[in-house]
Formats: sequence, structure tokens, C-alpha cells
Amino acid sequence: MRPLNLAALVERVHAELLAQRGRGRVADYIPALATVDPMRFGIAAAGLDGRLHCAGDAHQRFSIQSISKLFALILALQMEGRALWRRVGREPSGTAFNSLVQLEHEAGVPRNPFINAGALVVVDVLCARHAVPQNAVQELLGRLIDSPPPRHDAAVARSEREHAHRNAAMAHLMKSFGNLRCPVDQVLDAYCRQCAIEMSCTELARAALLLAGHGLHPSGGERLLPGSLAKRLNALLLTCGTYDAAGDFAFRVGLPAKSGVGGGIVAVLPGECALCVWSPGLDEAGNSLLGTLALERFTTLSGRSVF
Amino acid sequence: MRPLNLAALVERVHAELLAQRGRGRVADYIPALATVDPMRFGIAAAGLDGRLHCAGDAHQRFSIQSISKLFALILALQMEGRALWRRVGREPSGTAFNSLVQLEHEAGVPRNPFINAGALVVVDVLCARHAVPQNAVQELLGRLIDSPPPRHDAAVARSEREHAHRNAAMAHLMKSFGNLRCPVDQVLDAYCRQCAIEMSCTELARAALLLAGHGLHPSGGERLLPGSLAKRLNALLLTCGTYDAAGDFAFRVGLPAKSGVGGGIVAVLPGECALCVWSPGLDEAGNSLLGTLALERFTTLSGRSVF
Amino acid sequence: MRPLNLAALVERVHAELLAQRGRGRVADYIPALATVDPMRFGIAAAGLDGRLHCAGDAHQRFSIQSISKLFALILALQMEGRALWRRVGREPSGTAFNSLVQLEHEAGVPRNPFINAGALVVVDVLCARHAVPQNAVQELLGRLIDSPPPRHDAAVARSEREHAHRNAAMAHLMKSFGNLRCPVDQVLDAYCRQCAIEMSCTELARAALLLAGHGLHPSGGERLLPGSLAKRLNALLLTCGTYDAAGDFAFRVGLPAKSGVGGGIVAVLPGECALCVWSPGLDEAGNSLLGTLALERFTTLSGRSVF
Amino acid sequence: MRPLNLAALVERVHAELLAQRGRGRVADYIPALATVDPMRFGIAAAGLDGRLHCAGDAHQRFSIQSISKLFALILALQMEGRALWRRVGREPSGTAFNSLVQLEHEAGVPRNPFINAGALVVVDVLCARHAVPQNAVQELLGRLIDSPPPRHDAAVARSEREHAHRNAAMAHLMKSFGNLRCPVDQVLDAYCRQCAIEMSCTELARAALLLAGHGLHPSGGERLLPGSLAKRLNALLLTCGTYDAAGDFAFRVGLPAKSGVGGGIVAVLPGECALCVWSPGLDEAGNSLLGTLALERFTTLSGRSVF
Repeated sequence: MRPLNLAALVERVHAELLAQRGRGRVADYIPALATVDPMRFGIAAAGLDGRLHCAGDAHQRFSIQSISKLFALILALQMEGRALWRRVGREPSGTAFNSLVQLEHEAGVPRNPFINAGALVVVDVLCARHAVPQNAVQELLGRLIDSPPPRHDAAVARSEREHAHRNAAMAHLMKSFGNLRCPVDQVLDAYCRQCAIEMSCTELARAALLLAGHGLHPSGGERLLPGSLAKRLNALLLTCGTYDAAGDFAFRVGLPAKSGVGGGIVAVLPGECALCVWSPGLDEAGNSLLGTLALERFTTLSGRSVF
Repeated sequence: MRPLNLAALVERVHAELLAQRGRGRVADYIPALATVDPMRFGIAAAGLDGRLHCAGDAHQRFSIQSISKLFALILALQMEGRALWRRVGREPSGTAFNSLVQLEHEAGVPRNPFINAGALVVVDVLCARHAVPQNAVQELLGRLIDSPPPRHDAAVARSEREHAHRNAAMAHLMKSFGNLRCPVDQVLDAYCRQCAIEMSCTELARAALLLAGHGLHPSGGERLLPGSLAKRLNALLLTCGTYDAAGDFAFRVGLPAKSGVGGGIVAVLPGECALCVWSPGLDEAGNSLLGTLALERFTTLSGRSVF
Repeated sequence: MRPLNLAALVERVHAELLAQRGRGRVADYIPALATVDPMRFGIAAAGLDGRLHCAGDAHQRFSIQSISKLFALILALQMEGRALWRRVGREPSGTAFNSLVQLEHEAGVPRNPFINAGALVVVDVLCARHAVPQNAVQELLGRLIDSPPPRHDAAVARSEREHAHRNAAMAHLMKSFGNLRCPVDQVLDAYCRQCAIEMSCTELARAALLLAGHGLHPSGGERLLPGSLAKRLNALLLTCGTYDAAGDFAFRVGLPAKSGVGGGIVAVLPGECALCVWSPGLDEAGNSLLGTLALERFTTLSGRSVF
Repeated sequence: MRPLNLAALVERVHAELLAQRGRGRVADYIPALATVDPMRFGIAAAGLDGRLHCAGDAHQRFSIQSISKLFALILALQMEGRALWRRVGREPSGTAFNSLVQLEHEAGVPRNPFINAGALVVVDVLCARHAVPQNAVQELLGRLIDSPPPRHDAAVARSEREHAHRNAAMAHLMKSFGNLRCPVDQVLDAYCRQCAIEMSCTELARAALLLAGHGLHPSGGERLLPGSLAKRLNALLLTCGTYDAAGDFAFRVGLPAKSGVGGGIVAVLPGECALCVWSPGLDEAGNSLLGTLALERFTTLSGRSVF
């Protein structure tokens, strides 16, 4: 295989899709998210060679939302190891990403750690160990990008918390099944703050190099995760990382990825690079519409995917 | 039809079933309920002629639990009238296996006011009007039996509240659909207190005369409900009053009835009498096992039912 | 209670609702049903005194469709007795009347004998005993009305059979659970023929006197069913006889009833009379819209219902 | 990356797992499958270099069952192109517990072509074009392995057909939604014959090289599928190829794969090789227990997976 020309690819994908900015629907279930400029569009690619390439609004920070679930999971696995998998599954959900049906049917064990219910279990694990759980996530992120920990937007977290009735329903249901140990309010607080962390495409692409590099620190080379676990996280991202469109996303894009309703998508090309795309307009499944198109274009132009 | 000999019927049913005391399983999801003596067994029948007949432990008070839903509904209908039916249905639930599924599928509108979700909507209506909603229920009950309002057991209410995670899940889910107006905690508090009201078979039989008498006050004869509404409440009791066994209960017993996990069942023979049976052992559907047998025996021996 | 003036009631209800003919939507899932004149409207009431009162198109025959399920059930219970209840439940379905979900969840045992799946089990019982099962239903009907057996419309049956894919799905699913004994095709054939039986309001009202009279032959007085079983069938009709609107129907009308998509509804006022209303326009639940209104008006005007 | 030593890997994996033969449960829903010797265990690996490596019972033919769905899908895509995706989705099913629920909920469109409902749609496509659809599948397979078409076992097909009530239920349900065009019986016949095709590990590994080689004929190099489609089929195998355990399989093994209840699993390492493992004992999800372990061991020892 010829080497990737990441700089040229990032430029080209950005240029090709620029005219489509504004497509999709910006998340508006909380006021704070609805105010984001729908015309924002950024791409960043971080190579394992340490070089970073970006285009558009790649340096502007946005609400990472569900992308935080990936890093919270990494922390929880470092704490609990395999025992975590007794409390959360690793199968695609196959139903609406915040559906209670499955949870009720399977006795309070969420299908995977990337649906909201599963992420709440992961946060519960962090809550049991950390007085301020979102700090732990922010510190991990800071460490991965050799920077001070990124901050969360308290207003977004608060707004999210006020509208968290559906997540509260899932948390209470899991509590009724004994699969939540900390108080429901504490878990929801931590979850909403974690979702409100703000980062840029360049920062997220660098952080995700951890998985492209199979567990080594993105710059230092220090091993943070066993290689086999990093690969397995990539598997989980591929089958469960993009809400109920994971099958379609794998079909079209072919990369492990985690999306957030803030419009960001982080993707991993194992052994080569990590990418982050940001465009606030979402498709029906809740993934960034332009972001998905950009990643699809990237794998088409480069001829690279995990398949 | 020859007139009912209520005194003889109550005696005979009690005598026939006395040997079966202890059957079924006492509710133990909260410690306070689990301590009830499983051998308790009482029957009371209140005739529209004003006479009361009872046998066994008919004067001992017990936790009325879901029987309270009937009286809370009467209050809510007095306040809201038909508008209430926009927020709660009047169909049997039919979904023993997954109560949250229906709620999710039908956008937060519970099937009927006697399943927990529906009762929470009813309590929400009371909360919007009354600072202390359970007081209103207690006052209605006191008024119906010409006594001071019956009390609720604060320890039972507190214990119930601590284990209310599943009800909390439903309340939050309805809140997310906009079908709950007061704060979730306030609704749950009021609901748990209302369930912890304590009354005896004789008291409940007298209170239920309201429905046997088609809306007239049990003793005074004053009209409290329009006759057509009283009949319709009987219909609702018949199709929805005994959890997921309503079809079977109607088949075997043939009377409108409301049961509670405290082991009480209130039943109505329109135009003739109201009954209350108490025996703490429950069947699989959560209805008093002996209570159901006693009412079945009553309708068999008397040849009376609504059918 | 003052005696019913059935003649006047039938006249008045018919007169009051005549202007509303044409409301609702005629069943059109098979061509043969769609051609019925939507302006047809008939009412018949048969008193236990042997007198028959009718108005409008009460003598015109129509496709009785699901009303046949009641009479097939009576035959199956005569054959199998209580053993039938091991193969079919007696709880309201609470889901779409031809839903497969419940059937899959509850291992091939339909909720009740009036949903399609349950009716297929009933027909399977008849198939095991009768070479031509619909003949047995027709003969029972003929016997009840002291006439030659009513016929089924072969064209309607054939058309229904050609569109029976959903019923076939349910039949095969029950077969996979071992709850269907005869070949699926044979059961479906018999089921479709039985649904295509044609009768008039007057004939159906007379046939349903069996249940109003607690099991005695409508004219002769011979006992065909034990009184307790007749009452229990009334209970089943009340909780399950009108598709997914049984709760609402009981609330509004308050009578045991069985409806069919041909626009007929049979209703029972135990101890007094049986009614049949026919108007082809259906409401959303599949019950005759005008028929339901007429029965509601009947119970309001007469002050009579089971409650 | 150092080159794979397929010969050594195949030998080692086989040797390591030999002692565990007999684990799992042989499929017994039809008599013909239940008679297979549970101690059989074969592995074959076909490199893109044209070399074949095998161990154990790699030359013995077995019933390929659901593995046939992959090749039928390839044929259907060649015929219909993207239009096929209007009739079948590409999302993991996620609903172990109730396959018909999803089908009913999503209006007869199966989640993906590898669950039975989806495979029936694929066969329906073949039926519309081929008088003897399974012949087309057999011919494709023969062409891929440069041999006469493999045969199907008529007794297995017949036995499968006799027990196909659940598949019949799904087919009729899809027919009721208009998503099946040919007669249900014809589709079920073709489906059961296709499942009864018999092949060996070596044959299946060679056939699957088509996907490892991104659409080129395994030996000749002729292009049979566009490269992007071959990659997308790999994506589909990864997210949907191993029943309801696809997430877990991706997590543990990390290769696109298709399993069958005959105990075979075909797996693809894109750009390098294709594998087939056979051991009749199944795990709870219906995948070969030893086969999954063998593939997991293969990716662990080789350090190779798509991630």
C-alpha cells in the first residue's frame, strides 16, 4: 500500500464538502446546543508519525457530548478490567439509542457502553472511585493531548441536567435492577458534565491516536492500554459507536468511530492515523451528516478502511 | 331474583376458606409490608340498605396500597373531568412483561389509571391542586365512612419511597414526554404516602358503597358522583382493576374490583352491595390469593355477578 | 327497575343516529368487503320474553366476520372444556389485535380467543373434530335461531384467504411453538370460511340470547351451556370482545359485546335481552362507529348496563 | 508488519484446541443435523498467494447452513445492486429475544441480510430470476473454487423444510407487508435447499478469498465484485455475520465472519487470507464454540485483525 498523504486528503475532503455546510439538523433538545453556528465545518487528521493536518474550523472547540463516553470507558476499564463486562454488554443495541425496552428485557444490563444507559453504568464506576468523576475524564484527555485538561461548559451541563428526564428514567430503572451503585443524582450530574466537555477537532484527533497506535500514548509512546484492549475498543467503536446507524456507518465509512450530538465524530484508522470531523448538522440517527460524508469520502479517496 | 342474604354469605365464604389461610406469598419488596401476619383473613360486605356484615379480621387495619388509586382517581375526575382522559387511557395494559415498553411506545400516556404509571399521573393532578395531596385522599375516605380521615403509616411510606426506583423510572419517562407537571420527587412522595393509608375491610367496604350506589354517599344519600360516571368507574375497575389478571378475574369473579399488594381487594356488586376481603398472601399477579377465591366463592354461592 | 321498553328504545336510537350514517371507514382489505353500502344501518333487539324489535336494515344479511369467533368458541368449549384454557388465555391483548409480539413473548399462547391468533387456536380445535369445521359453526347458529344453517359467502372466504398472510404468519408461529395441531392451510381455510358467514341483525340478536339467557336455548329453553359458563363468556366478551378498544367500549357502553369488521356488533344485557347493530363504517379500532354510538345511546337512554 | 506464517498458525491453533473438541451443543432442531459427530474439528486458511493450509477434518464436507447467506447475497447484489437495500437493512439486529418484533415494528423490512428474515428476502430476489435458485448459489460456489458446483443434501433440506414454521411465519409476515414477491412456499423451498449445501473447510476458505482479495476471483484474478462492494460486504459480515453475538465476536476475534449452525465459520482477513473453521458444537448464540475460540486464538497469535 502506498503511504497516505493525509495533508492532501484533509484538504480535498474539506474542499469537496464545503458547499454542503448547513445540511442536517442541529441538536436542539437543550437551548445551549441549539445556538451553535450550523455552518461550522472542521477536519483534523493526526498521523502516528506525529504530524497533524487540518482544515476549516478544526481549532474551534465544541461540545464533545457522547464522544466523552469513549474516554470514560477507557478509565472504567483501567479500574475494573473485565469485571465491567458483567454490568454492560458489547452488542449493538438495535433499538433507539435511548430506548428503555431493551434495558427492561435484559434486567438492567445495557447493551453496550456507548448507548446512554451503558454510559451511565460507566460513569457510575467512575463515581465510585472519584469524588469529581468528570475531572478524571478531563485529566485523561489533557494527558493524551499534552495540555491542561479541557474544560466543560457548566451552562451546557446544567441545561442538559434539567432536560435529563429520559436518562433519569434509565438510571432509576437500572437502580431498580441493582446495576447502579452511586445515587442516581450523582451519576446524572457527572454524566452531564462529562458530556459538556469542550474540545476541538485537532485535540480530539490527537487524543484518539491512542487507539490508532494500539494503546501507546499519542506523543510519548508510553503504553497506556494493552494492545489487545485497544484493538477491542476499536471493535466496539465499529459495532456500537455511531448510535443505531453503526451498521450503515461501517458499511459506508468502514472505520471505528464515536459520534456526539454536538456534531463531532472521532474515527480511527488503526496503525495509521486518527481523524476528527465537526459539523453541527445531524442526520436522523444523530450523527453529523457532513461529518459522515467527509469520513466516507476520506476512505473512498484513500482506499483505506479496516476492511 | 331473590334478595341476597349477605350475613349468611359472608359467614359461609369465610368458614369455607379459613383452612386455606397462609396460601400465596406476602409482598416483601419493602420490609414494612413483609412483617404482616400471613394468617390474617377478613371479609366485610356493606349493603345499600346500610347494613354491614363481616367475618374474621374485618376490623383490623392494613395497608390499602393500590386500592388508594381508586379514590385518588375519583378526586382527580372531580377536578379535571373528561380532560383527564387526555393524559391517561382506559384500556387494560396487557403487558405484564414490560410496563415501560407501553409507556415508551405510546408517548408517555399510561394505559389506564390503575397501573402505577397511570396512578402517578392521577397523583400529579392532585399535586397541582393540593399542597398535601394524600390529605385530600384521606379526607375523601373519611367523608365516605363518616369518620376522621384514615391515616397513612409514615414508616411504610418512607420505606416504599426508598424502593421506588421503578416508579421513579416511569415518572421520569412521563416527565420527558411532558405528561407530568409537578416535580417527580413531589409526585413520588405523595404517591407513596397515599399507598400507605391504612383501613379495615369494614371501612373499605363502606367507602366502596359509593360505586355500588351509583354515586350516592354511602350513608347520607347525597350525590357525590354522576350516576353515569359511577357506572363507568365500575367498568374501569372490571377491565383494569386487578393488575394483569383483570381478564381472568372478570372471568372467575365477575365483579368490578380493585386490589392492593397489602392483600386487600375491594369489589362492587352494583345496585346491591360492596365487599372488601383481606388476606396478605398474593398470587402471581399480585392479587390476594385467598381474597380472589373468597370473591369467586361469593359470586358462585349467590349466583350474583354483573354478568 | 322499571321494565325496558325495547320497541321504543330501538326506534329512538335508530332515529337519533340515522343522520350519521356513512361515518367511519368501510373495511377494504379485501375487495369483497369494500363494496358494502356504507349507508346501511340496522338494529335488532331480542328480549328474553321472545319478542323481537328492529329498525332499519335489520333483516339484511352481512358478513359476520369476527362475530363468528364467539360461536366457534362456544363449540370448542363444549368439546374441550377447561382444557382449552391451556392453549389460549383470557386476558385483554393490550396490543394491536393481530400483533405477533405478544405471541412470540408468550410462547405461542394467544392472549384470548377473540384476537385472531386465539381464534385460530379455537378453529384448530374444531378442525381436529370436524371434517368441515365451519359447518359446525353454521349448524350451531342455525340451531340457535331455529332456521337452516346460515351460509358463508365463498367469494368472500376465498378473497380473505388470499390476503391471509398475517394470519398465516401467526398460525405458523403458533405451529412452531406446538400450539396448532392441524395443518396450517386447513386451519386458515376453515377460519376464513367461518368469518364469511352471513347473517342479519335479527338473526344475530336471537342467537346471542343464548348468553343473555345464561345458557338456555333462545326459544326452547333447553340448556345448552351451564349458567356459570354463559356468565363467564359474557365476562370474556366485556374484557376482550371489541379488539383493542375493549376498555373504552366497556367504559362507554357497559355491555359484553363482540364486533366484526363487517360492521356488526352483538351485545348482551344479561337477564334481559340481546342486541345486534350493523353499520359498515368502522372506527380506528375496527369496531362499527355508528354501532358503538347506538349501543352507547341504548345504555344511556335505558339506564341499563352491567354496571 | 511481518508476514503471516499461515501454515504454522493453522497447525498451532488446531493443536492447542484439539483437547476441547466436543464442547458446545450440536444443533438438533432437525434430526439430520443432530447426527453429526461432535468431535469433528477442521481448520483451513487460504492465502491470497494461492497457498492453502489446513489441519484436522478440513477436507470433510458439512452442511454450510447460514454461510450460504453470504453467497446468495453476493448474487442478489449482482442482480439488484443498491436497490436491494430498499428491501433489507444493514444494521445489526440486536433483538435476540424476539426476531418477529423487529420485523413487525419496521414494516416487514428485515434488519440485515444475514438474519433469517433478511436471507429470505435475498432468496426471493433469486427466485424472481432463477427457476432453481439454489442452483445459482451452487454454481457461484463452484466457480469460486474452480470445481463442479457443490451439492445440497436433499434429506437435510426436506427435514429443514418440515420444521420451517418460524421461517414461514416471517415469510408470511413480510408477504403481508409486500416485501416478498414470489410465493412463500417457493422461497422457503429454495432457502432450505441453499442451507443444505455441503462443503469443506478448504472449499469455503477458498471461496471466501473473494472477499479477502477485495472482489477478485480467488485463483484467476478476474474481478467479480467492485473493490468497494467487497469491503462493504466485509463490514456487513463484521457487524451482522455471527447472529446476535456480532458485537462480542468482533470484540474477541476482530474479523469479518459468517457462521452457520452446521458448525462452520468463514472469516476474512482483508488483504491477506480467508479462513474456515468447523466444529459442530455451538455456543448459546448459535456460533461454533470451538470455531470462535480457534479464530480468537488465530488473531491473538498472529497479532492480526482488522483493528
